Amino acid sequence: MSLFKKEEYLSRIEKTKTLMSERGIELLMVSHPANLNYLTGYDGWSFYVHQCVLVALDREEPVWIGRGMDANGARLTSFLSNESIFEYADNYVQSTERHPMHFVADIIRKFHWEKKSIGVEMDQFYFTHRSYVELEKSLPQASFVDANALVNWVRVVKSEAELELMGIAGQIAVNVMNAAKTHIRPGVRECDAASEIVKAQYAGTSTHGGDYPAIVPLMMAGEATKTPHLTWSDKPFKKDEAVLLELSGVYKHYHAPIARTIYLGTNPPQLMTDTAKVVIEGLAKTLEWIKPGVTAEAVEAKWREAISHSKVVKESRLGYSIGVNYPPDWGEHTISLRPGDKTILKPNMALHLIPGIWYDDVGFEIDASIYMTETGYKALYDYPIDIIYNDK
Amino acid sequence: MSLFKKEEYLSRIEKTKTLMSERGIELLMVSHPANLNYLTGYDGWSFYVHQCVLVALDREEPVWIGRGMDANGARLTSFLSNESIFEYADNYVQSTERHPMHFVADIIRKFHWEKKSIGVEMDQFYFTHRSYVELEKSLPQASFVDANALVNWVRVVKSEAELELMGIAGQIAVNVMNAAKTHIRPGVRECDAASEIVKAQYAGTSTHGGDYPAIVPLMMAGEATKTPHLTWSDKPFKKDEAVLLELSGVYKHYHAPIARTIYLGTNPPQLMTDTAKVVIEGLAKTLEWIKPGVTAEAVEAKWREAISHSKVVKESRLGYSIGVNYPPDWGEHTISLRPGDKTILKPNMALHLIPGIWYDDVGFEIDASIYMTETGYKALYDYPIDIIYNDK
Repeated sequence: MSLFKKEEYLSRIEKTKTLMSERGIELLMVSHPANLNYLTGYDGWSFYVHQCVLVALDREEPVWIGRGMDANGARLTSFLSNESIFEYADNYVQSTERHPMHFVADIIRKFHWEKKSIGVEMDQFYFTHRSYVELEKSLPQASFVDANALVNWVRVVKSEAELELMGIAGQIAVNVMNAAKTHIRPGVRECDAASEIVKAQYAGTSTHGGDYPAIVPLMMAGEATKTPHLTWSDKPFKKDEAVLLELSGVYKHYHAPIARTIYLGTNPPQLMTDTAKVVIEGLAKTLEWIKPGVTAEAVEAKWREAISHSKVVKESRLGYSIGVNYPPDWGEHTISLRPGDKTILKPNMALHLIPGIWYDDVGFEIDASIYMTETGYKALYDYPIDIIYNDK
Repeated sequence: MSLFKKEEYLSRIEKTKTLMSERGIELLMVSHPANLNYLTGYDGWSFYVHQCVLVALDREEPVWIGRGMDANGARLTSFLSNESIFEYADNYVQSTERHPMHFVADIIRKFHWEKKSIGVEMDQFYFTHRSYVELEKSLPQASFVDANALVNWVRVVKSEAELELMGIAGQIAVNVMNAAKTHIRPGVRECDAASEIVKAQYAGTSTHGGDYPAIVPLMMAGEATKTPHLTWSDKPFKKDEAVLLELSGVYKHYHAPIARTIYLGTNPPQLMTDTAKVVIEGLAKTLEWIKPGVTAEAVEAKWREAISHSKVVKESRLGYSIGVNYPPDWGEHTISLRPGDKTILKPNMALHLIPGIWYDDVGFEIDASIYMTETGYKALYDYPIDIIYNDK
């Protein structure tokens, strides 16, 4: 049984088809697991083999194509009828003789789509170069168009039903950061703290179970605070070290990321407290200002202006769009809050603002996960925006 | 500081270069995160942006290229000297104007490799079609060769140091399955059991912290036992339902997968117990027989022969090679135990045998994670090979 009502999926498919028409795409091949989930409800850890969903202008229901053993999963989790589910034999998997795209081409021919203009997600992980080559070779009469992030751009404005799930993810995010706060202490092994954090992620709340995040808990302690994107070791935390955390609450694959910095002592380095002050005030000023109708780049410019009196420099983007996602990234790959992104913010868009700063000897991270309302924004969770001090 | 000694990495690189020479590849571009880790020690959750390691026949050290904010991570976790680490600016990330492969091409030109024969991993996730197109466009004098799984095939024979880590992963696997056994009970929410399982995965043992698995805990209960690859819900387990589990112990990204079937009662359906008996005996006979010198397909034939007296049919492969890995798959994408795979098994190869059976109304899973010795095999863990009964 699919997560949302069938009407919700049909409305998403309708929006996708409108974008397809505008771009002259008659058949869209979707490979990104979040896009498969978004359009059909399909939810399985099967994205390590080739699979796709085909959306055709001349067919109401999309077509799911995947590995034989995963077809029952598609029947269980998607809204699709059995006539829309096609399975390839196991000897297509990681074979050097045959490729799953040969089977996909067979299905495309079966529906007489072999001369169509076919959109593919050309810069998505999960759609390899070889997939493209085999598809093109198998369908010589088709023309191929880059439809990268086409469905991602449909995802960018959330439905009320989606925002409800993101709100639950926000509740879980609070539990997750509280678990970090409780367990990250001098003498505790990093792995043991990570295990309590992930436990909180999966367990969720008493009424809503959690889900696996698209990014595992990121935890940078001591020397590692000069960089993002690392995971835990089995060393114990030390007194007077900082710990950067990039976590998320997740519900049904919808994310509410939460990032904070814990200091295991009472007296952090001056550079860290100075940076924290600038970043926290800059983030607050940006949030006071953000509203529908402004562009993504204007939000970043506001942030830059707010910290311009200081020495803090942030070269990387300020944030990005969030929603439903699967590993390896909870970022939607649509809106980036940075110069050049002229996307106009609209109600029901959801953003993760994460002004992370990594110097060569110390770092600081804090964030806000929000969605736009008719007049301003609403936070996905309420959690103190400050350094967390754990001194014993 | 890298995980293994520099000599271990240099030996891996030497083996890679030998294979490159044999295939006429002068420069190898490696994109798979496990291959980056294997060749350099690099360990960061940064594979959701484009990154690579370049191995050139005419340079001893590989070259790491990634996003600016991840370069400190490369300095912290790899054995590479600073002269081998190159970082691209943040405005290359998910841009429609510029692509990280333009920067990679700049580095290739800087080292005068632009006319070389360049090997790329054409069917790996993490190397997209667009990456190939942009690289080819930027380097018109280069010739491109498919080097898919080239490094994976170097990884297939493990060093003693690697087997030691896999042994620790095996110890963790036992803790992980014990956590499942303790917490999967009628009335417990699936998400709460999953949270205890993942906690055991990350916590590891008292002497060795665990790591995140390349595949999250897979847990199929009740109706979902007709399929693999699903995750938990927030429903409570029911009395008299079966639960299929695909889990793993992980240490420093080295995996020891463990799969079992729990029955929440005393009287499973006859089809399940019949299937279990056939599969368990078939697996035992296969393991009695397996030894270095036989082919991967012969192992599968032995298994098929061992169950031929029964009605059990397994169409999918019996197993595959395992070792170091990152999401989305702990399978190495080299050896498959199935007809047509003529790889001769050698000492220090590691295999996951997983004869999973999914009927339309019930399934059964059990497994063995082993490595080949000089004369036979050694199991990565010792865990009862039987249905687990949890009846209260």
